[in-house]
Amino acid sequence: MDEFLVTPDPDDPRLTQSVTGIDETGQPVETRVPMERPLTLYLNGQEIVTMMTIGDRPDCLALGYLLNQAMLRPDDVIDGIDYDEELGVVVVRTPVRTNFEEKLKKKTLTSGCAQGTAFGDLLDRFEAVKLDKSAELRVSWLMSLSKKINTQPSLYLTAGAIHGCVLCEEDRPLVYMEDVGRHNAIDKIAGWMALNGVGPQGKIFYTTGRLTSEMVIKCVRMEIPILVSRSGFTAWGVELARQAGLTLIGRAKGKRFLCLAGAERVRFDTSDTDVE
Amino acid sequence: MDEFLVTPDPDDPRLTQSVTGIDETGQPVETRVPMERPLTLYLNGQEIVTMMTIGDRPDCLALGYLLNQAMLRPDDVIDGIDYDEELGVVVVRTPVRTNFEEKLKKKTLTSGCAQGTAFGDLLDRFEAVKLDKSAELRVSWLMSLSKKINTQPSLYLTAGAIHGCVLCEEDRPLVYMEDVGRHNAIDKIAGWMALNGVGPQGKIFYTTGRLTSEMVIKCVRMEIPILVSRSGFTAWGVELARQAGLTLIGRAKGKRFLCLAGAERVRFDTSDTDVE
Repeated sequence: MDEFLVTPDPDDPRLTQSVTGIDETGQPVETRVPMERPLTLYLNGQEIVTMMTIGDRPDCLALGYLLNQAMLRPDDVIDGIDYDEELGVVVVRTPVRTNFEEKLKKKTLTSGCAQGTAFGDLLDRFEAVKLDKSAELRVSWLMSLSKKINTQPSLYLTAGAIHGCVLCEEDRPLVYMEDVGRHNAIDKIAGWMALNGVGPQGKIFYTTGRLTSEMVIKCVRMEIPILVSRSGFTAWGVELARQAGLTLIGRAKGKRFLCLAGAERVRFDTSDTDVE
Repeated sequence: MDEFLVTPDPDDPRLTQSVTGIDETGQPVETRVPMERPLTLYLNGQEIVTMMTIGDRPDCLALGYLLNQAMLRPDDVIDGIDYDEELGVVVVRTPVRTNFEEKLKKKTLTSGCAQGTAFGDLLDRFEAVKLDKSAELRVSWLMSLSKKINTQPSLYLTAGAIHGCVLCEEDRPLVYMEDVGRHNAIDKIAGWMALNGVGPQGKIFYTTGRLTSEMVIKCVRMEIPILVSRSGFTAWGVELARQAGLTLIGRAKGKRFLCLAGAERVRFDTSDTDVE
């Protein structure tokens, strides 16, 4: 697959807005900030959640959210995804009532929140995932990926206050998605993979967000064996990564990084003198 | 009120964990990472949500969450808050069934998610809040607050991957709370204020997190007229702040900042030569 098949579009006027204010000296300034819009997701006739999103790729976000929350299974047939920009509504349609809808119907009387319910399911399925043990991450790829991703024109560079996730292969960033919600960015990648029939084999997942439990769970659900972040870790994120056999790399900045789980996949192919 | 009445405790062994891994040269390293635990919140007999939290001050978090989500009203009487550390459960008890419980009972059949329901209510009440127009923010206070907060021993400095919120008055940080969830940190402050009978008069709210719609809505609900962040803005965050008459300051780093709403409260009391 080619580099940067999908990239952010910092020039898209629907994604950022110019606002005026003052700076620390009281002088007027103009700056760009990312948009943030409510998007309400339905699975057939069932209202699932209202997400705050930058608003691009609602089809990927909707499908990825349902997959990553285990509300849809990868083998569920999708009839279509309808998006109404004006209403801020996206509807994922399946030919038959999904397993999740059945479950929710039974559970609403005891639990008010669909997300709580789904979170339990996430952990139930977590242990069944077998991540590819033969996958590897060369340190030279990691250095190259960091540089390519951080210099790619993005909403982050234009407007800040946004998270990015990048699906990578060896030293090539393939699909780069951004969103004001860090979980939206990972969900958009999951949705894009499902819509385009791209599997997890040989993939590396890069995120600007922290390596919390939910980020690790989502990566494992997507069956991607290597997760890299320029941010830090939480203890439960590390513990879950170790349980799942996920390679977990954080604080990846410049030529530095820490690997706190799955170090057996890391190949030190750069000479020591290359490392600052 | 005195400076730093409440501060993070980076030495509390329940809040961080030491983990081993390797660095970019393959050498073994040991580092500290913040804990992240599920905490399930009940309002009387109603399960509300499971939050991922660092785990300190569950009483403040529980009460603040319910207040900030408009599931409790400020005048609701609280019988008690029970926390079971082993089960990871916190229960807020009220003498009578709350307005929210009544509403949820009616709504569960049409909407699966309590949070979506509550979010609508948040915006309904938003317009009724009148923020104190006479409040002011001196630039000298802002410089002093940033310095004091950023040099205070914290989980952020010890373990990273955490957000902080600080309730301030003039140039004094009063209550500093941290959490792996940025909204948990603001909710803990709201809960602390309610439990200690501290009102919003003369207060300034500082956060390390981004100035998104939800952050602005929560600050307005808490009736604090000035919100400061070292992170950036979203467009809807700016728009809501302007609607509410909130002073919104972001990208506050060193001596620099941007004010994108409510600039009339800012007093430029430092001489120009002080500003780099």
